[in-house]
Formats: sequence, C-alpha cells, structure tokens
Amino acid sequence: MNRKELWFFIEPDADQDVSSYDKVMLVVIAASLIPLMLSGEAPDWMHWLDGLATFIFVVDYVLHWLCADFSHAECSHRNRFLCFLLYPLRPIAIIDLLSILPGFFPLNHGLRIFRLVRLLRIVRGLMIFRNIRRRRSVDLIVTALKKQREPFAIIFCIAVGYIFVSALVVFNVEPQTFKSFFDALYWATVSLTTVGYGDIYPVTVVGRLFTMLSSILGIAVIALPSSILTADLMIILNESDDDESNDVSAPATQSAQMALQHINVPKEDAS
Amino acid sequence: MNRKELWFFIEPDADQDVSSYDKVMLVVIAASLIPLMLSGEAPDWMHWLDGLATFIFVVDYVLHWLCADFSHAECSHRNRFLCFLLYPLRPIAIIDLLSILPGFFPLNHGLRIFRLVRLLRIVRGLMIFRNIRRRRSVDLIVTALKKQREPFAIIFCIAVGYIFVSALVVFNVEPQTFKSFFDALYWATVSLTTVGYGDIYPVTVVGRLFTMLSSILGIAVIALPSSILTADLMIILNESDDDESNDVSAPATQSAQMALQHINVPKEDAS
Amino acid sequence: MNRKELWFFIEPDADQDVSSYDKVMLVVIAASLIPLMLSGEAPDWMHWLDGLATFIFVVDYVLHWLCADFSHAECSHRNRFLCFLLYPLRPIAIIDLLSILPGFFPLNHGLRIFRLVRLLRIVRGLMIFRNIRRRRSVDLIVTALKKQREPFAIIFCIAVGYIFVSALVVFNVEPQTFKSFFDALYWATVSLTTVGYGDIYPVTVVGRLFTMLSSILGIAVIALPSSILTADLMIILNESDDDESNDVSAPATQSAQMALQHINVPKEDAS
Amino acid sequence: MNRKELWFFIEPDADQDVSSYDKVMLVVIAASLIPLMLSGEAPDWMHWLDGLATFIFVVDYVLHWLCADFSHAECSHRNRFLCFLLYPLRPIAIIDLLSILPGFFPLNHGLRIFRLVRLLRIVRGLMIFRNIRRRRSVDLIVTALKKQREPFAIIFCIAVGYIFVSALVVFNVEPQTFKSFFDALYWATVSLTTVGYGDIYPVTVVGRLFTMLSSILGIAVIALPSSILTADLMIILNESDDDESNDVSAPATQSAQMALQHINVPKEDAS
Repeated sequence: MNRKELWFFIEPDADQDVSSYDKVMLVVIAASLIPLMLSGEAPDWMHWLDGLATFIFVVDYVLHWLCADFSHAECSHRNRFLCFLLYPLRPIAIIDLLSILPGFFPLNHGLRIFRLVRLLRIVRGLMIFRNIRRRRSVDLIVTALKKQREPFAIIFCIAVGYIFVSALVVFNVEPQTFKSFFDALYWATVSLTTVGYGDIYPVTVVGRLFTMLSSILGIAVIALPSSILTADLMIILNESDDDESNDVSAPATQSAQMALQHINVPKEDAS
Repeated sequence: MNRKELWFFIEPDADQDVSSYDKVMLVVIAASLIPLMLSGEAPDWMHWLDGLATFIFVVDYVLHWLCADFSHAECSHRNRFLCFLLYPLRPIAIIDLLSILPGFFPLNHGLRIFRLVRLLRIVRGLMIFRNIRRRRSVDLIVTALKKQREPFAIIFCIAVGYIFVSALVVFNVEPQTFKSFFDALYWATVSLTTVGYGDIYPVTVVGRLFTMLSSILGIAVIALPSSILTADLMIILNESDDDESNDVSAPATQSAQMALQHINVPKEDAS
Repeated sequence: MNRKELWFFIEPDADQDVSSYDKVMLVVIAASLIPLMLSGEAPDWMHWLDGLATFIFVVDYVLHWLCADFSHAECSHRNRFLCFLLYPLRPIAIIDLLSILPGFFPLNHGLRIFRLVRLLRIVRGLMIFRNIRRRRSVDLIVTALKKQREPFAIIFCIAVGYIFVSALVVFNVEPQTFKSFFDALYWATVSLTTVGYGDIYPVTVVGRLFTMLSSILGIAVIALPSSILTADLMIILNESDDDESNDVSAPATQSAQMALQHINVPKEDAS
Repeated sequence: MNRKELWFFIEPDADQDVSSYDKVMLVVIAASLIPLMLSGEAPDWMHWLDGLATFIFVVDYVLHWLCADFSHAECSHRNRFLCFLLYPLRPIAIIDLLSILPGFFPLNHGLRIFRLVRLLRIVRGLMIFRNIRRRRSVDLIVTALKKQREPFAIIFCIAVGYIFVSALVVFNVEPQTFKSFFDALYWATVSLTTVGYGDIYPVTVVGRLFTMLSSILGIAVIALPSSILTADLMIILNESDDDESNDVSAPATQSAQMALQHINVPKEDAS
C-alpha cells in the first residue's frame, strides 16, 4: 500500500458521509471519553482501554503526518518537504497532539488540567462530521445562516452588548447582591436566556424594576435572530422547491415564452 | 352477529373520527387511570371500579384476538391460523396484555412497578386517536414534519450531542457540584431547555463562564427546529391555498395558455 | 335627552375606538381597582373614592338597563317588555352586578371573597376594548388565529394532554416528591412552559430521566402553535399586500390578458 | 483649522460607519466605565485614568458646543446666537453634561447616585452607533419593525396589561405570599417571561391553579410579536430579493410584455 492509497483510506472521497476509517476513530474517541464521565477511581480495565486508545491516536497522528502533502492543496512538488515540516503547526494537528498528550499520564493523575485537555478529543470527533454539510437538507440551513451573516453578527453584538449593559446597571444598582461584576454578568446571561436558576436574583425595589424592564426587552432581542433565520429559510426552501417539481410561477414564464415563439412564426410568415 | 360484523363494530371504517366502541373504551381507560392519581389508600368503590375496568379490558383483548385475521392485511386464507397464533406477539397486543395484568393484583399492592405498568393503558388510549390524522388541519402539520424529516433528525442529533458535550465539559470543570455524570446531563438538559429549576447550578467562575456560553449557543440550537417547521408549514399552507381558491399565479399560466391557443389559430390560417 | 340619545351616548357608533363615556368608565374602573393593590389598612380618602366609584357603577348599570331594548337586535316592538325584564339575566349584566355588589360593603371587610369578586370589574373594563378589533392591524392577527382554529384547538388539546400524561407519569414514578396529583400537574405546567421556579423538582434518577425526556419533547409541543400562527399570518399579510399596491404576479395575468385581446384582433382580421 | 473643518472632524459625513473621532471617544467611554465594574477600593492609576477621561469628555462637550450651529438644521444665519445659547438645553447635551459631572468627584465618593449617573455615558456611547442603521441588513429589520408599528404597540399594551391583571389577581388570591402589589408585579413579569427565579412562587392551590392558567396563556401572548415580526420580515426579504436578481415571477410579466410587443407587429402589418 503506497502513500496515495493510504491517504484515500484515511480521508476518502466525500461521496460517503462517514468513511469506515472515521467510524473506527469515532468509536475510539467515544471510548476514550468514558473515563471523563467517571467521578471516582477508574477500574483496571479502563486503564488498559485508555492505553489502547492513546496508541490508536498516535498511529492516527503519524498516518496523517505521513500524508501531510496530500491534505493541503498548496503542497506542490517543490515545497512538499516544507509541508511535512510545518504539519505539526497546523491548528488541527496541534489540537490532535494536545488531546493525545494526557493519554501518557495515569488516568487519575492529580492535575485537573489533564482531564480538560482530553476534552479536545471531542473537537477531533466533530471534524469527522464536517462532511455532513454536503447533505442537501443541512446545506439549506447552512446557506440560510450564511446569507444573513451580517444581520446575525450585528444581532449577536447587540445581544452581548445588551447583557453587558444590563450587568453594568444591575451591578451599580444593587451592589449588595452582586458581589463582583462577573456575578452581574452571570446573572444577566442566565436571566436573559430565561434559564433563571434563582441562585442570584435582585432583592431591592430598584433592582427588581430593572429586572422586569430588562427581561421584557431581552425576549425581543433573543426573538430577532430566530425570526430572521425562519424568514430566510423559507425563501430558500421556496426557491429550491421552485427549481425542482411543483414550481408555481415558472409555467407562466414558459408558456408565455412558448406563446412568444409561436407568435414569431406568423410574424415571419407575414413578412 | 358473525365475526366480520364484530370486527366492523370494534374497528369501524375510518370515516368517523372516533367510533362509539372506542368512545366507551376511552371512558373505561380514563376511569382505570383514576387510581393512579391518588397517593393514599384507595376507597372501596374504586376497587370495584378497577375490577370492572379490568374485566372490560380482558373482553376487549379477547375480541381483538378473535378478529386477528381481519386486523392484518397479509392474513390470507392460508395462513389465517398462524395469524391467530402470532397475535399475542404483536407489539400492540403485548402492550395491551401488560397494561391489563396489574388489574389482577390489589390496587394498593406493595410493588411500585404495578402502578407504572398501568400507565401503558395511556398508550392503548392514544391508539384510538390515530384516526385523527385524517383531518386536513392535522395532516398539514404532519406533512410539514415528514417533509423535513432529515433536517429534523440531524438537528435532534445535534441537540442531544450538544447536551452531551455540555454535560461532559461541566462535569470535568466543576466536579464538586456535579457528583455524577448523570447530574451533569440532567443539569445540561434543564438549562438548555431554559427550564432552570435551580436545584443544580455552577458555583465556580469557570463553570459559570461555560454556563453563559452554553446557554447563549443553546438557544440557537433549540430555535432551529422551530424555524424549519415554520418555514416548511408556510410553503405547504401556501400551496394548499393555491390549489383551492385564491391562487395567485395560476391565472397567469392559464391566460398565457389561452393566449397560446388563440394565437395558434391565425398561424394555421396563415399556412 | 330621550332614551335613544342616551343609548348613543353610552354606546356610540363604533367609528371611534373608545367613546368619551367609555373613557370616563375606564378611569372609574382603574380607580376602583386601586384598593385591590393595597395590602394593609386603606386610608380614609380611599373609602370615599370607593363609594363614588360604586355610585357611578350603579348609575352605569341603571343606564344600560334603561336602554335594554336597544342593546339587543332581537328586541322588536312586541317583546320589548321581555327585554327589560330579562336584562339582569344576561351574562354581561350578571358580571356587572356581581362586580358592583362588594362596593356596598366596607373596603377592609373580613370576607376575602369580596376582594376577588371586585376583580370582575376588569372584565367590564375589557368589554370596552372589544371595538379595537376593527383596527386593520389587529384584524389581520384575529383572522390568522381564526383561520387555523381547528389546528390550534387540536394542539391545545395535545398540550393539555401532554401536561396531564407527564403529571401522571411523574406522580407514579416519584411519589415522595409529588405529594398529590395536583402537585404533579403544577410541576408539569411550570416545567413545560419553561418557567421552572424550582419549588418542586424531581430528585430520583428515574424522575430526572423522565423530566429530561419530557422537557425536550415539551418544547416541540409548545413551538408548534407559534409556527402555525407565523406561517398563516405571513400568507394573510402577503395576500393583503397583493391586494393593495406592490402585487407581484398579477401583472403577469393582466399583461397576458392584454396580449390575448390584441391577438384576437388579427385573428378576426384574417377571417 | 476653522470651525467648519472642526465640525467635519468630530461629526464626519455618514459614509463611514464609525469615524476615527468616534472610535477614540468609544475607547475613552469604555475606559471610564471600568471603575463601575469594581466593587472595592479603586487603585491609584484608575483615579488618574478617570481624571483623563473626564478631561476628554469636557473637551468633547466644548467642541460640540463650539459647533452648535452646524449640528442643527434650523440654525440659519440670523438665530445662530440663539443656537449657541440653547445648546446646553438639548436632551443629548444634558445627558452629556450629567454623565461628565460625577467625574469631578472622587471615584469612591459616598453618594451612590454618582455611580448611577456615570452610567449615562453608555447613552453617549450608543449615540455613536446610530449611523449603523444605514447598513442594508439592519435597515431591513428596522423596516419590518416600523411597518408593523401599530400591531407591535397593541401587543406590547396587551402584554403589559396581561402582566398587570395577572399581578392583580395573584395579589388578591394569595396575599400571604405577595406582601405588596409590586411583589406581585415582579412575580408576574418573571413568570411570564419564563425566567422563573423561584424567589417568589405561589403556595396555595388557588394561586397555583391561576399560575398554571396564566403561564400557558402567557406563552401565547409572548409568541405573537415574534410571529408577526417573522411574517413581516419574510415578505420584505422576499420583495428585496425580487428586486435584485433571482426574482421568480417578474420574467412572466416581461415575457408576456415581450409577447405583446411582438404581436403588435403582425397586427400593424395586417392593417
């Protein structure tokens, strides 16, 4: 098996949704996340499992490195060597490496950070699903989201700004409840997303008045993106419907054009 | 009354919404659920009522078994015997039987499981409403939901995956609050559906930061299905509107075709 | 001022949104609700105010009774006497009378029920706003709601049924938390509307599992009505748009028809 | 640099989104808000920073005053003097002045009100973003909101009225929980926006029954504005789509018109 075949094995053409190589990787990633769902001491078999998963991740990393020149379009024959050299500096390679590293330390290692770094393996898992975008149904939604990128960005800024200003006001209105500005930010986010745990809430009259005003306005801010998306999705679905089968207005165009063609005949005859 | 008449009595043609037989069964099911709404000791008359309901359920089960060959399209003359034999293994027959069984034990039997199995009678009750689908207004919604089955399935997977990843992160970020992974899953579900009871909530700065991020993103994930449904429903409603009376673009087609026909005449005259 | 003039004074033609008589009544109703917003002992001036309001309500009741024959279309010359006799039995007259009665008792009367009956005055106030329906913008929404009356009714039944079944399941799954079935109903409503106070919440694993499932499904049930309304409103707005100015497809029809008319001429010439 | 040049420097033509002068002001405003995010004693460097910010605000105020005659369209040559005289009475100038004043007092001054007045600087910052309206994507949303101004206003009144009536009912139904009418108003707002902190909740059966009813209805009231906005946005987006490129029904019109023109030719030939 030469390198080209290897590359087509680990990253096959995007005709399939998820390749068999990726399916195996998904199972290994899922298995390697199991220790992160345990709170107490991990049993013995889990240490063995984690060792096996780490070994497979290392093999996966090496295989991808071996095919570094195929994975990038700009790798011409000339700077192929540079491609191999720079591969570990690519973002996805760094995430890969970081997520493998904690595998070399015992599962119940004291340092908390090792557990968190392991979570990066989720990113590696999500990368596998990027091909799913090619599905028509997903593509419609992605197109709708992209088409309105600017209003979404502006609304996101408005939402974040709204949370920030709300936090700033409430923090100065009721400092006895909100001990730090971060407390106020947390309260504003939890309130305006209507989660409302009830661990922090205003107790003074002014604070409550502001909460009432802020909540009512907040719903409007949060309802906006959903409305834009719906409106846009509808237009796109409508158009893609027209392109396919039960288009409503196209016949009018066609029959009018047909009328046009038929009319041309007598006109020419007449001349 | 022969068996064919019996069958048309218990499962009449779907012209009616709910047959009189089904109406009686609904009342019996509702009555048999009353004991499940009581916490203390059931009064005497309720024991009698429950006995009567159990008797009716048994009769209903036997009647359906007697007509087993009518209820299935594949029951030809040849394998009719097999139909009767295999009837108790059909899913609906198993649910029926399971929901009847607790009726043979006293109402305040110690085993909790008996109460829960009784809840299966709700499934039997819901089966009666399956005919409601034939109503035009319900059909439109069902059509809209079916048409976008794939995006809905994908979004459902994204939502469940989002809850799972959120739980995984928060469980490792703040293990002192979330004692088990199930706690974290419960928290993630309650937070991202914006119910937010406030029985579990993050207390550390990192946990709160993640909660803020997760909540804002979570709203987007949950707003998506609603947007798709709305967009699709609108197109279907729009089309069914066009088919009926006030269609907007069809006249254009028709008049253009009429124009075409009239034009054809001079063309032929000219030749 | 004869009785006819009186009638046009208290219930003028619906050309105006809110008549001057109704404006005065609104102020009196608002003023008479102020004592209901106080918890402690009412000050002296409030007793005087309440007495004045009660007097005005009595006058309003008598005036409406005097014009009983105008207020009902079926009151012909013959059964006019019956109209006057039966007026106090009409629903709106009963609500009016009930809401006046507590005014004859002291404001801080021991019986709680007197306070609640006073709330009926809100109904009297709302009756005044019924003319607002004639506004075009409100009419569009009312039309959209009416057009989809059947699906809304079905979805409302599904929502109530869903809350009921959720309550039934959780009550039997976790009886130690939910002391009565009403507790479970209250929990189900507060959870599925995503209010989630956190005064009652499941504590067992099975109860929490069911809560998670129930919440995710519940969002879908609640998102449906909103989607239907949006879709329908859009079509109605779209059509009313077309009727007015910037209609999109009508020109196609018109121009095609114009084409038709012009073509007819040469055809006739040819013959 | 004469006064006209100065004016174009501080309030340039609206071709740019945010001018360089405004960018500097935004940074200064942001910096001057930092002390509001601290709870304890401010460090020394912050006092210096605040002094600098106050100085810049004073300069900004004076510069705007100097150009008072340019900033208002009605300032003709004759009443220019009046313009300068009345400038400090304009709303924006009053807000500016008020927000500067606390800068002349020490940061950790005892009077709480100084901190709150500082928050007015946010308003000054928001004024800078008013030019963003000229962006097409924002303009679409603003147009949609404006077009349905009347229904939005009516729904807003319904929502506020609904909260008020809910509060009034619950306050009289359960006075032991809601100590004041403001408590009831706060509860109603927090419940109907589905935030539901859980700091106040009904405990009696009647109160809970009303809460259940009120919550289910409340969702409908809150879902309405979002539905109207979506429906309207869609129509506007649809129309602006038609105007641009992929319009669906316009070709029908055009081709029919073309047909019309071509048909005219033989008609004229025939005559």
